[in-house]
Amino acid sequence: MDAVSHVSFLTDYGLADGFVAACHGVLLRRGVSALDITHLIDPGDVRRGAAVLAQTVRYLPVQVHLAVVDPGVGTSRRGVVVVTPGGLLVGPDNGLLAPAAAVLGGVTEAYALAARPGVPATFHGRDVFAPAAAELATGTPPRVLGEAVDPRGLVRMPPALARVLPPAEPATELEAEVVMVDRFGNVQLAASGGLLGDVGLVPGGRAEVRFAAGRDREAGDGRRPMVIPVGVTFGSVEPGELVLYVDSAGMAAFAVRDGHAAERLGLVPGDVVTVSPC
Amino acid sequence: MDAVSHVSFLTDYGLADGFVAACHGVLLRRGVSALDITHLIDPGDVRRGAAVLAQTVRYLPVQVHLAVVDPGVGTSRRGVVVVTPGGLLVGPDNGLLAPAAAVLGGVTEAYALAARPGVPATFHGRDVFAPAAAELATGTPPRVLGEAVDPRGLVRMPPALARVLPPAEPATELEAEVVMVDRFGNVQLAASGGLLGDVGLVPGGRAEVRFAAGRDREAGDGRRPMVIPVGVTFGSVEPGELVLYVDSAGMAAFAVRDGHAAERLGLVPGDVVTVSPC
Amino acid sequence: MDAVSHVSFLTDYGLADGFVAACHGVLLRRGVSALDITHLIDPGDVRRGAAVLAQTVRYLPVQVHLAVVDPGVGTSRRGVVVVTPGGLLVGPDNGLLAPAAAVLGGVTEAYALAARPGVPATFHGRDVFAPAAAELATGTPPRVLGEAVDPRGLVRMPPALARVLPPAEPATELEAEVVMVDRFGNVQLAASGGLLGDVGLVPGGRAEVRFAAGRDREAGDGRRPMVIPVGVTFGSVEPGELVLYVDSAGMAAFAVRDGHAAERLGLVPGDVVTVSPC
Repeated sequence: MDAVSHVSFLTDYGLADGFVAACHGVLLRRGVSALDITHLIDPGDVRRGAAVLAQTVRYLPVQVHLAVVDPGVGTSRRGVVVVTPGGLLVGPDNGLLAPAAAVLGGVTEAYALAARPGVPATFHGRDVFAPAAAELATGTPPRVLGEAVDPRGLVRMPPALARVLPPAEPATELEAEVVMVDRFGNVQLAASGGLLGDVGLVPGGRAEVRFAAGRDREAGDGRRPMVIPVGVTFGSVEPGELVLYVDSAGMAAFAVRDGHAAERLGLVPGDVVTVSPC
Repeated sequence: MDAVSHVSFLTDYGLADGFVAACHGVLLRRGVSALDITHLIDPGDVRRGAAVLAQTVRYLPVQVHLAVVDPGVGTSRRGVVVVTPGGLLVGPDNGLLAPAAAVLGGVTEAYALAARPGVPATFHGRDVFAPAAAELATGTPPRVLGEAVDPRGLVRMPPALARVLPPAEPATELEAEVVMVDRFGNVQLAASGGLLGDVGLVPGGRAEVRFAAGRDREAGDGRRPMVIPVGVTFGSVEPGELVLYVDSAGMAAFAVRDGHAAERLGLVPGDVVTVSPC
Repeated sequence: MDAVSHVSFLTDYGLADGFVAACHGVLLRRGVSALDITHLIDPGDVRRGAAVLAQTVRYLPVQVHLAVVDPGVGTSRRGVVVVTPGGLLVGPDNGLLAPAAAVLGGVTEAYALAARPGVPATFHGRDVFAPAAAELATGTPPRVLGEAVDPRGLVRMPPALARVLPPAEPATELEAEVVMVDRFGNVQLAASGGLLGDVGLVPGGRAEVRFAAGRDREAGDGRRPMVIPVGVTFGSVEPGELVLYVDSAGMAAFAVRDGHAAERLGLVPGDVVTVSPC
């Protein structure tokens, strides 16, 4: 048997059980190969799943993206196919797919996956979503899989905070939420890199960083403001030094050259910082 | 080069060394692709390897399953090919393959892999089993790889405990061993879901759970009986609540909605519980 | 779309972010599939990355090896293509590729990857190395990708210590650095297995092991000499016992049957031991 098409695949299933392989098997039975994004999203962490998916899809030459981070499996939450100019997304309707859909050009249509009798209630990745993705990857139109629903009714998570202050020109301060910490300890903010320039933060300059209240955190929380350089990359500073830069996803980010910025700054996703020139 | 067939692949090799890749390379040299089940079985944990393999094989559209959890490598334990109506299994003769063979329809023939001179003694996955799997996947009959042996002589692990009590009808209590804990903390018992109904445990009812002596554990061990609801899925209960249900492999299991049942119940593989209606 | 060729792929990117998938996507867009070696090299651990790569490449039926463990990304370190009789290697010029190049027959030519304007500074795996590997795998000659450089100018790490003492015959002692500890706790030395015989250590004999100063360690460091058997494999000793043997990569190594030799001996990469017959 030879795989003839690919779907991307992201879950919180981990790699130690056979869950991912069972889904791979379901796909392969239809001649479809998986291009795995990650299966190490923390169990139920829809927000991180959405962020990783959104930052990766543009690099994947596939027309169907299968994503399952689904704390609501076994409840009445619905499964959906989301149609965008850049491809199809399949998964639970819990906000996981929305940021990737935006990257792919925005939702043009959406379909609620029809329930099929006899399907077990607890492993929709294997029994509902992977079969649907395989159908789509082999040419079945989304409308065959379920009823059209209003894209405006899809579940969305509140967007991560990113704004320049004051709102009237000239802005001098950027306030932004921490979206992700990666394996290297780099801290990505919700603000696109362009916003740094909008408040006057450019390579060669210096930024004052202040720690605001976050999702699970009091303002400051004992952390004092810091001054760190703005660079093009972590290569712009000496080993061990912090830098504020635009990361490979085009977002404002902190790094420590040869070190771990999230530990150094004491930042986790959901925290909020303000940065301003100084 | 283009892969023309697939074999499934399960080991305890981990993902941080090059062991899995070396085996992939050996397969690919013969035009065979691996469909990885998992390589994160704890080193030498034959029992868990056997359970994950058995629960996954039915979803994999391949004719050859390669599995290596092999604390006896370098000793005189033999390698085998096991023939079943649903496919071939290749690996060490240490009980790893038996539960999967049962799922695939039972062992009809078995062959002991012939020792080949000059093969290093310590990496049979790369040097013995992967080459054998590649041969089988490309059409070599098992008998070419070694001598037929009596299937009744294959090593089997003692089956995990699962029985209804009293033995005479009507049974009112199910005693079962914990087989697996998955990434989400769900606790799978050795009892098929049907046994729950046999002792009168049905969705909507309630079960008394008692903690018996297990493989490495005194009876109870300080844990008191608990009463928990029986549901169709973890969606049957409120977030944070325990439920007894039939899992996606068709087995009796405990879950906590949005939580970790194994931690809540203090259960690990090898523990034994009894459940009865109340 | 169907993959028509494979490149091997090793990084320190981890499996929890989308970094590996983005590179897979870049390759697949050119019809090239990745044969993953590992992505769990510790961040920036060039030495381990080099060792895993060198020990794995000979088993991989591919002509192009892509490796990125690159603490210098974003600095002026250059990217290179290394040509060997056994295939091409692509990655940063920081010593990562050299041991694998030696295994593949030695460097015959090298090319510095030409910088391309507009490429982001921080994710060269996705933006520089994977595109180059895809080019090479689909037939582009290395010289098209950059300027020829003198192979003698490539960065090399100091080789790990391995020597017999005294230098004049007959040698009676082997001094060697610990190169790797694998998932099973086996401790691989920098010495090829043949050196054991050169100092009179053969299966059935016994070795005195002494602990010398290592990269980050005082001599001995409180550990006293030990006497352990020399075997063909860990099957040569009883469960729980140490053994000195030649591992599956052909190197001198310590193992504990059904146990963890690195913990037992208190050894980590960079430590140095001497072994001699007794």
